[in-house]
Amino acid sequence: MLGAVLKHLADDRPAALNRLKEFLAIPSISTDSAYAADVRGGADWIVAALRQAGFDATAHETNGHPVVVGSAGPKGDQPGALYYGHYDVQPPDPVESWISPPFEPTVRDGAVFARGACDDKGQICCILEALRAWKQVHDDVPLPITVLFEGEEECGSRNLPAFVEGNRSLLDVGGDGRGVAVISDTNMWESPDGPLVAITYGLRGMVYYDVELHGPTRDLHSGMYGGTLANPATILTKVLGGLFDDDRRVTIPGFYDDVAPPDEEEQLRWNQLQFDEKNFLGAVGVGEGFGEKGFDLLARRWARPSCDINGLYGGYGGEGAKTIIPGFAGAKVSFRLVPNQTPETIAQSFETWVRSHEVPGCTWKLTSHGQATPVVVPTDSPHLAAAVRAVETSAAHRPVLIREGGTIPVVHDFKKTLGLDTLLIGFGRMDDCVHAPNEKFNLHSFELGCRTHAALISELAKM
Amino acid sequence: MLGAVLKHLADDRPAALNRLKEFLAIPSISTDSAYAADVRGGADWIVAALRQAGFDATAHETNGHPVVVGSAGPKGDQPGALYYGHYDVQPPDPVESWISPPFEPTVRDGAVFARGACDDKGQICCILEALRAWKQVHDDVPLPITVLFEGEEECGSRNLPAFVEGNRSLLDVGGDGRGVAVISDTNMWESPDGPLVAITYGLRGMVYYDVELHGPTRDLHSGMYGGTLANPATILTKVLGGLFDDDRRVTIPGFYDDVAPPDEEEQLRWNQLQFDEKNFLGAVGVGEGFGEKGFDLLARRWARPSCDINGLYGGYGGEGAKTIIPGFAGAKVSFRLVPNQTPETIAQSFETWVRSHEVPGCTWKLTSHGQATPVVVPTDSPHLAAAVRAVETSAAHRPVLIREGGTIPVVHDFKKTLGLDTLLIGFGRMDDCVHAPNEKFNLHSFELGCRTHAALISELAKM
Repeated sequence: MLGAVLKHLADDRPAALNRLKEFLAIPSISTDSAYAADVRGGADWIVAALRQAGFDATAHETNGHPVVVGSAGPKGDQPGALYYGHYDVQPPDPVESWISPPFEPTVRDGAVFARGACDDKGQICCILEALRAWKQVHDDVPLPITVLFEGEEECGSRNLPAFVEGNRSLLDVGGDGRGVAVISDTNMWESPDGPLVAITYGLRGMVYYDVELHGPTRDLHSGMYGGTLANPATILTKVLGGLFDDDRRVTIPGFYDDVAPPDEEEQLRWNQLQFDEKNFLGAVGVGEGFGEKGFDLLARRWARPSCDINGLYGGYGGEGAKTIIPGFAGAKVSFRLVPNQTPETIAQSFETWVRSHEVPGCTWKLTSHGQATPVVVPTDSPHLAAAVRAVETSAAHRPVLIREGGTIPVVHDFKKTLGLDTLLIGFGRMDDCVHAPNEKFNLHSFELGCRTHAALISELAKM
Repeated sequence: MLGAVLKHLADDRPAALNRLKEFLAIPSISTDSAYAADVRGGADWIVAALRQAGFDATAHETNGHPVVVGSAGPKGDQPGALYYGHYDVQPPDPVESWISPPFEPTVRDGAVFARGACDDKGQICCILEALRAWKQVHDDVPLPITVLFEGEEECGSRNLPAFVEGNRSLLDVGGDGRGVAVISDTNMWESPDGPLVAITYGLRGMVYYDVELHGPTRDLHSGMYGGTLANPATILTKVLGGLFDDDRRVTIPGFYDDVAPPDEEEQLRWNQLQFDEKNFLGAVGVGEGFGEKGFDLLARRWARPSCDINGLYGGYGGEGAKTIIPGFAGAKVSFRLVPNQTPETIAQSFETWVRSHEVPGCTWKLTSHGQATPVVVPTDSPHLAAAVRAVETSAAHRPVLIREGGTIPVVHDFKKTLGLDTLLIGFGRMDDCVHAPNEKFNLHSFELGCRTHAALISELAKM
């Protein structure tokens, strides 16, 4: 049965690419309220695409952007699969660094370039195309399938936990351990012999804050006031400069208390991956790694928490000189967390730590932009065995098992609320420039993704 | 003779205000190259205004914005005066904080609101109106007067020293100690009984840098790379966070080595000023001062060097969350210097200090935005005595002698190149919001400035 589906996918490739390009042209930037209508446009596009493929599909309202849910397949007791993806994208700035405009999808050098090409619209389309092909060739998918596509992944998935909580029966695909969740929002493994499909069994969690220090009621002349009062930009810099000690460890009290180290078997597996650190860094123009003392790069990326300033703002940032003391200054500060850290604890510790720095004449303003719990899913489940067989069919090699440094908050929610473990199989490449200018998705990745999801549906139906 | 001039000024007040508003409508923002044509427009406006007043006037080209020079008065051996002002203005951002648009001059609450209203177009117009009145009433000014208005004060007066150097004879008004320079770009003294005209005899110098740290060739996904390499925003923050020790003293080696303390008489005079610290800070919404340990606020403002971060930039600064490691981050960092610090030495020490922080995978990029030498001018000269008499006539009180924390680079150049000491008599108020939104110039200040300059011309002519 799978053979005919794979053949249909091969024949339908040009049309599939056109559908992807149509989807990518929608600037569904969830973090910027100016794009709210476009985010809704993204949801509407998926509903239409699902219906066209033969699924029931609805865009459900939330307190933020809509959640799209669709379903198809046999009714009854057969365990099913819950597919998840996100149709929102990161802001495209700096826009001037894009070779082709971020929302005018352009094919060149064997890839489609656009914001969201890899993260996550291209990978969503792999799922959609596999579903469509099964429907077209065999009139239905061979197991109960529910799809859930959210529009707030890039701004913290604020409303998703409540949605999942409030729609258990709608999303039920066999939460007694027989069903499984599937997500394509991760990367392939860049081995010395080329990319290998990877199954990602661990993800970091996150805590993200806007940290602002507000001082004078307006910008002041730095000659008239310099040295007389607290400059918010200067003090913010001094306080946040104290986030790290000389060993590049985060100084917030208790930050590392709950960190679980990787187990021995895992560490052995990572050693066998032949990770090419020079290549990983060299691809982004960096000659030497930098991070927490005492851990190699892969451990720092997958199994150690990190802290980053994602942006700095306040005062004059234009050309030349402006001699002011800014009325306020701010920084975007985020943490990636690992098992068994909890975002609530880290957020509380960070807030306490920031506010412990009292500054005469200034006030701290902290705004949380969402939290996510770190996860590790079992590597010995029958679902994972099915996924391994699917990749062997679609890619003709055995997938590797890895963790990732990124965050997919919903994995924790699926486990907690629906009792589902998640299979993370993704088709991104390290050079796909996600969250950066000139994001792309290789046409080969797109093809491989469609084939793998088609094969996975076949394998899961046999369970 | 002066009486008729003062009467003419009183009669001509509405027309003078219209001329000022016309001047203020020109967005002569020198620091942003997008406004180059408007800066030239500012120069052309002054040339026309001077010619209309009966002066010879020309806009001289430089490597940057034009310098306007005009002259009038008797030829011969009589010592003269060199008036200086600047027709360029600070950028108006944040534009959204202005009640009326920054380049649509608006009169309300007894003041004219516009960018440059006080700094320095309003004060330039005080000079222009005094010259015009003398010319109209007595056909000429009673001493040789040269005016020099530059267009680069707000971006470091980069080309002015060379211009002064190359035009000694054009600017010669008796450099053997008999002539004097006059500048109106300072404030009145806010005494408990109201504003008093002040003669400012000391100014701080300046060093201003863009400090950027460049790392990865593009913005990176903070999940994929967080903890693996140096984040330019995080490290910039850490390095610049080290600029101050816990006593709020600048940590750059040798920074305070050359600082000359105020003399005893000076300190006594300052104590008599009844400086109201609470009011000074309260006017900008700040309840408590902050600065170098061991010095009171007035000493920190006038006689101690300061260091400020004037702006922070890099990475994501918009609404919500963007989980990136920015490819670079930057800060505007400036120092106010006091006698006998030299900007060259401080600049060199700062550059060395920044570059001493080596960061794997990152490169520092430092851009200087100009330097200025701190100055103190003699308080026992006959010119200063003439100025005191002029203020007694125009304002009916004895002026106070103060220093200021700001910087007027040309004062040092006039001394070094032309042998001229400078009289600094200004009419700004503390609440005039220079370098900030809603800048204003009180109509009373405008009137007082016109009267004082008219009287000063009379006094200087008697010497």
